[in-house]
Amino acid sequence: MKPPDDRTELALGAGAEFDAIRTMLARWGPRATGIGDDAAVLDVPRGDALVASVDTALEGRHFQPGWLTAREIGYRAVTAALSDLAAMAARPLGVLVAMNLPSSTTGMLPEIAAGVGDALDAAGTHILGGNVAAADVLCLTTTVLGSAFRPIARGGMRPGDFIYVTGRFGGPASAVAAWSSGREPTPTHRARFAHPVARLREARWLADRGATAAIDISDGLAADLEHVAAASGVGADIDLDSLPLIEGVTDPLRGAASGEEYELLIGSPGELNAAEFERAFQLPLTAIGRATRREAGVTFRRGGERVAKPSGYDHLSR
Amino acid sequence: MKPPDDRTELALGAGAEFDAIRTMLARWGPRATGIGDDAAVLDVPRGDALVASVDTALEGRHFQPGWLTAREIGYRAVTAALSDLAAMAARPLGVLVAMNLPSSTTGMLPEIAAGVGDALDAAGTHILGGNVAAADVLCLTTTVLGSAFRPIARGGMRPGDFIYVTGRFGGPASAVAAWSSGREPTPTHRARFAHPVARLREARWLADRGATAAIDISDGLAADLEHVAAASGVGADIDLDSLPLIEGVTDPLRGAASGEEYELLIGSPGELNAAEFERAFQLPLTAIGRATRREAGVTFRRGGERVAKPSGYDHLSR
Repeated sequence: MKPPDDRTELALGAGAEFDAIRTMLARWGPRATGIGDDAAVLDVPRGDALVASVDTALEGRHFQPGWLTAREIGYRAVTAALSDLAAMAARPLGVLVAMNLPSSTTGMLPEIAAGVGDALDAAGTHILGGNVAAADVLCLTTTVLGSAFRPIARGGMRPGDFIYVTGRFGGPASAVAAWSSGREPTPTHRARFAHPVARLREARWLADRGATAAIDISDGLAADLEHVAAASGVGADIDLDSLPLIEGVTDPLRGAASGEEYELLIGSPGELNAAEFERAFQLPLTAIGRATRREAGVTFRRGGERVAKPSGYDHLSR
Repeated sequence: MKPPDDRTELALGAGAEFDAIRTMLARWGPRATGIGDDAAVLDVPRGDALVASVDTALEGRHFQPGWLTAREIGYRAVTAALSDLAAMAARPLGVLVAMNLPSSTTGMLPEIAAGVGDALDAAGTHILGGNVAAADVLCLTTTVLGSAFRPIARGGMRPGDFIYVTGRFGGPASAVAAWSSGREPTPTHRARFAHPVARLREARWLADRGATAAIDISDGLAADLEHVAAASGVGADIDLDSLPLIEGVTDPLRGAASGEEYELLIGSPGELNAAEFERAFQLPLTAIGRATRREAGVTFRRGGERVAKPSGYDHLSR
């Protein structure tokens, strides 16, 4: 974020962007550090690697008009980006947010900024910079910066590893299905879509206790497990009956296909203490299967029998 | 950039985004490092601070259809973002590029990617990650990461400092003026708009020799000098007759108002060796005035007489 008298103001002209940036800075308060020069300057903890990722939330593509409040749009965009740091067991250092703002969204800006602030607070981090441009379609592109002494990743699963997931599945898919057929989702399902949580502390807890592979579940558990298996060069044997489902969802296939969960899928050579995890985070940690040799492929079972792979969450079908 | 089987593929559906990412990776080759996990992992040189900034290039806003080739669009977006690292005298560590791509741009993608690669090569850096989303309007949002042992910034100018600029001014404004009145710019003016250079090596050379303040000129020299003066709490006395102008530009007011130059404005307590700089970079380094006490304000002179501040480059007028 450049100071209000920067080129971004000129790009909007006549004070509109000045007002936009001032509105956001007023909402962010002390969470907006490092703002005001051509770039932010920050320290990476000595010995840590820098971890960086970027994610885009585009209206009409990643969410539809009417689904989310302005505050939820800001919260969800930043939280989804932060979830990529959780997948690496990284600690957030800060975020940069580039916003494309239609003039029709001017009134929403304080609430979008408040939602961004909610996401920063939830992650215990702050905003380092950004950009504002006048545009036809609302779009938030969030860059997340974090650090980790020993990042974990998709490629760290080995045959025999225990496979765990955090949380309860099926909420976002159920919310999208409801909206897409003209119904309002249940509050529980809606909250899982509109208020996901980046499992940052959970990921570091798990990495500290021996987890060696992680991915955040954005395409659906089944699809994301295949990404991990491919990156790790392993197969997997998954018992869908063990998958925890959100209230109101009974079909584990829906749970395993539901995207945008932002829960974690974890590989660990040793068993993890699920009871201790649940006490620490008030969130289930559930073993759902084991990694196998690559040649065995990725297998999903119900009642002990193989079933077809639950199909990934299709963003286009929303 | 996530692997092609990631959610971004699903977001475009049916292989389109798979193809987009594969196309870009093929163009980038070894310049695409750190690609393929939820986030990139990299080391910041020990003792250095991390420097980060984000910048957006949106068709119809920052450039108009027909002005630039696809390759120039990719080059210019990344170069403009890298220029913010130059303004901090930082060394680039890498970039992340989030692209919003209309389906009509599919054919342009190899060339956009090639242009991104040109910018990486020019800066001696590589791509760390990105995101691809289907959209209605072409938009490239570039996050730049760099490092510096002692970053310089806008706030480091003191009364009495020498004020220098790199390069020759007026090209981009002349190119935009030509396009806006239906003419083709001269090749020289066009090149200054379409092929700016991020003055990364120049900035480090200047910082190493005592420069204490810098900004990259995006709003126009006059406007950006006011940003530095405000951030530093100084005034300035500028001799517009000394401003180097690009071939075909004779009015220093146009030169001082021309934006998107991506040249550097520098403050230095001591005189800098301009001849040595010019030998090193084949680029003029020119003293254009001195910093003064804040109370004196920012003054522009021609023939020794005060003139009105050259008005900043108005992006809306394009």
